[in-house]
Amino acid sequence: MGRKTGSHSEITGPRVREAALRLIAQHGFAAVSMRQIAAEVGIQAGALYNYTPDKQSLLFDLMQSHMHELLEAREASRTRGDPLEQLEAFVRFHIRFHLPRQRAVFVSYMELRNLAPDNFSKIEQLRTCYEGELQGILDEGHRLGDFEISDSKITTLAIIAMLTGICNWYREDGRLSAAEIEADYWTLVRKSVGIDAAEPMRHRRAV
Amino acid sequence: MGRKTGSHSEITGPRVREAALRLIAQHGFAAVSMRQIAAEVGIQAGALYNYTPDKQSLLFDLMQSHMHELLEAREASRTRGDPLEQLEAFVRFHIRFHLPRQRAVFVSYMELRNLAPDNFSKIEQLRTCYEGELQGILDEGHRLGDFEISDSKITTLAIIAMLTGICNWYREDGRLSAAEIEADYWTLVRKSVGIDAAEPMRHRRAV
Repeated sequence: MGRKTGSHSEITGPRVREAALRLIAQHGFAAVSMRQIAAEVGIQAGALYNYTPDKQSLLFDLMQSHMHELLEAREASRTRGDPLEQLEAFVRFHIRFHLPRQRAVFVSYMELRNLAPDNFSKIEQLRTCYEGELQGILDEGHRLGDFEISDSKITTLAIIAMLTGICNWYREDGRLSAAEIEADYWTLVRKSVGIDAAEPMRHRRAV
Repeated sequence: MGRKTGSHSEITGPRVREAALRLIAQHGFAAVSMRQIAAEVGIQAGALYNYTPDKQSLLFDLMQSHMHELLEAREASRTRGDPLEQLEAFVRFHIRFHLPRQRAVFVSYMELRNLAPDNFSKIEQLRTCYEGELQGILDEGHRLGDFEISDSKITTLAIIAMLTGICNWYREDGRLSAAEIEADYWTLVRKSVGIDAAEPMRHRRAV
């Protein structure tokens, strides 16, 4: 902070992205200037323009990086196994990836409205691609008769919203550990696709 | 729009709130000025200050009104019945209340960070109060042995995130009607508390 330098070698993508993310999460995209972002990185405004042509490109870059990182991490964590094992792997991966990135998650949802239409389409495509990972597992589990699902698209969106929602309240020093939260959410998701939920007597259907 | 008038009788709360909500949802709280809000209502900036002392009070008023409206509507829709019936009523109420208020929902989540600490506490209290409605139903269902729940607080937050998440993608001209979406989400919630989920043979536990 406050360190001024003309050296372009210091203007690394991660540093600019980190500073932009911090400021946008705090004040919102429309209220943050390129000058403020440059100051936060510790460079001259002019040097920032050597890295990115404008604020819109920077916002798009932030969101695209977040999605690419997500898709790459998902790719690396993908497991073989039956749909139930794959579903568990997806749920645990999703929570572990997002919990340490609460700021990026917040900005990714909040600032979608500030993306130019073609940038919005690209981010939307990446999201659809990620959601497709989960939907594919649900469809396969349904096809094999393992899962009880009425609409795999709705179930996908519901599960992702439920899991990502943890970012809104999770604190490291909270009542439950990340591992306990993960276990509880996995149980909820598992039951929501019809696996292992014990039916109380009065609600049991006559077969 | 553009209509200028000094008549204070026209500065009704709903009109100011509606204009502020529209601008804040679009640009973010930090980027919107009192002057812009006044112009959107069609009054002089000075007249706006007769309604609210500052932008912070206006934001708080927006969020507080949203929560009061929610709690009053919930109160009015509360039903008698067993926990399962009450849970269904809550889920359907939550979806019906929030779907037509996508903008208010967005602002309520996004701008929490811009509330002054004491205002934040007050909104937090109202939210806890609303969440308590659902948690109370879950606890009662658990106590009676109707619901299978590992942690009622986590289940509450998960269900609310899942349901409110519909606001992120719902469009009136979408693939599914609001009634179909409601039915699908009710099934998901019902199953997540262990009711009526059929267990595929291979996952059935030995009893």
